[in-house]
Amino acid sequence: MSRLTSLSKVTRMNADGGSRRREDVLAAEEPLEIRIGDEPFSVTMRTPGADFDLVAGFLVSEGVIAATNELISLRFCAGEDENGRQTFNVVQAQLRPDVVLPDLHRHVYTTSSCGICGTASIDAVRKSSRFAPAEAAPGFALEMLLALPDQLRTGQRIFDKTGGVHAAGLYRSNGELLCLREDVGRHNAVDKVIGWALREGRLPLRDTVLQVSGRASFELVQKAAMAGIPLLSAVSAPSSLAVQLAQESGVGLIGFNRGSSLNVYAGALPQQSEASVGSLER
Amino acid sequence: MSRLTSLSKVTRMNADGGSRRREDVLAAEEPLEIRIGDEPFSVTMRTPGADFDLVAGFLVSEGVIAATNELISLRFCAGEDENGRQTFNVVQAQLRPDVVLPDLHRHVYTTSSCGICGTASIDAVRKSSRFAPAEAAPGFALEMLLALPDQLRTGQRIFDKTGGVHAAGLYRSNGELLCLREDVGRHNAVDKVIGWALREGRLPLRDTVLQVSGRASFELVQKAAMAGIPLLSAVSAPSSLAVQLAQESGVGLIGFNRGSSLNVYAGALPQQSEASVGSLER
Repeated sequence: MSRLTSLSKVTRMNADGGSRRREDVLAAEEPLEIRIGDEPFSVTMRTPGADFDLVAGFLVSEGVIAATNELISLRFCAGEDENGRQTFNVVQAQLRPDVVLPDLHRHVYTTSSCGICGTASIDAVRKSSRFAPAEAAPGFALEMLLALPDQLRTGQRIFDKTGGVHAAGLYRSNGELLCLREDVGRHNAVDKVIGWALREGRLPLRDTVLQVSGRASFELVQKAAMAGIPLLSAVSAPSSLAVQLAQESGVGLIGFNRGSSLNVYAGALPQQSEASVGSLER
Repeated sequence: MSRLTSLSKVTRMNADGGSRRREDVLAAEEPLEIRIGDEPFSVTMRTPGADFDLVAGFLVSEGVIAATNELISLRFCAGEDENGRQTFNVVQAQLRPDVVLPDLHRHVYTTSSCGICGTASIDAVRKSSRFAPAEAAPGFALEMLLALPDQLRTGQRIFDKTGGVHAAGLYRSNGELLCLREDVGRHNAVDKVIGWALREGRLPLRDTVLQVSGRASFELVQKAAMAGIPLLSAVSAPSSLAVQLAQESGVGLIGFNRGSSLNVYAGALPQQSEASVGSLER
């Protein structure tokens, strides 16, 4: 049994009174402590696996680093459980000495001044990306975008077993999959993809689209902006602040992408292929 | 237009190339700053509405308070936007003077010692509830439990308009609805319900079941335990740590409650009604 899933005894009961005891496969969820040097930075509940990607991506999302060479090393801290086994639940990040460390207090409590609201509140909560939005966002093909939810679902290994995890998939504009990650937390799945890109030296992620399995929240749009991703596509609804941030930060935003139709909330409209538009002229 | 939703221009595109521009109703999402006295405590992204419930419930979930009279007052802080309007995005909680305030640093960074994992990690992350689990959990009726997902869905006002919010509903063991709250954040919806209960003087919530619209994470089980709720029922899957915490803390846990069947991961099995079991003897 991998660390991505675990087994549990469960009793399934039906409306007609029938019941059956069996083993159920659960998505694993464990705490991960992230340290910068020797300083604790954050604790997150996550599905184990791709932990270095998660930490790297979290540091990008929080605006701490944006270039591959700002991250010198990642290692599991030497924690041991009561049986002397490595826990793999503490990751220490070593950053380049000139990286400005975040003020941990400010990092968590965004402001101590009153008046957090409207424009002011968004400014207070959101981080500023080092990557300006693409001057001319690439024209994504409608057909390719509508195929993404099915493609993402096909690639979800943990979901197939547990039904209990979110996924984020990064695709080139031609629809080719670059990276797919799963996690019990929506935000973690996206951080894992962004961290993979940082470690592969691919930031900013121009000419890509990020497909997520759930809804589009403010934080997911912000993560896309921090990584230079020009287009975010979600299976479910966006929130009001997600749309507002997308419009202001130049990130394209698609919601309710259900395979047969999609909603464009921000950015350029997807392009229809010549095959469908110009079929009469051939 | 209420503060629960907002309007946005959207272009809907279909696979056949048809497109239509229209107004879309979005679930509102705005930051809320929570203060204890004059000290900033936390910032959360939430759907405005029931903000006092949200703050009260968050303080219960975080283990700061557990009794109605420990919370002296809640008020919107006098923040104003650029047009001089009250922002309603900062809430100040006044606590009884003898309430032990949380160490804000520890509150966020649960531990600075290595070895956060397995049993140790759960101890580090989780709070301890002032309410012991019920000695004999009430026998919930299977029929009543299977009806909850539909009941919750029926009561979701914001979801009907936006398709983009989570819900939490608190029900008596006879199925009567006590409180239903919606939010773009799963955890906020539960905090709003728990805060309602604290403000109504109903903690601990014996003899109730909490139905949630999504999956059951570690944090949701913990929130149920902090409020003395004996049974948590989720529409989707639980995580491994949710099951572990439920078993250890005495909270009953039901997952995949789909109306026609449900899975029992922790706690007593629901009871079948005499009508179905004993029908042959009548």
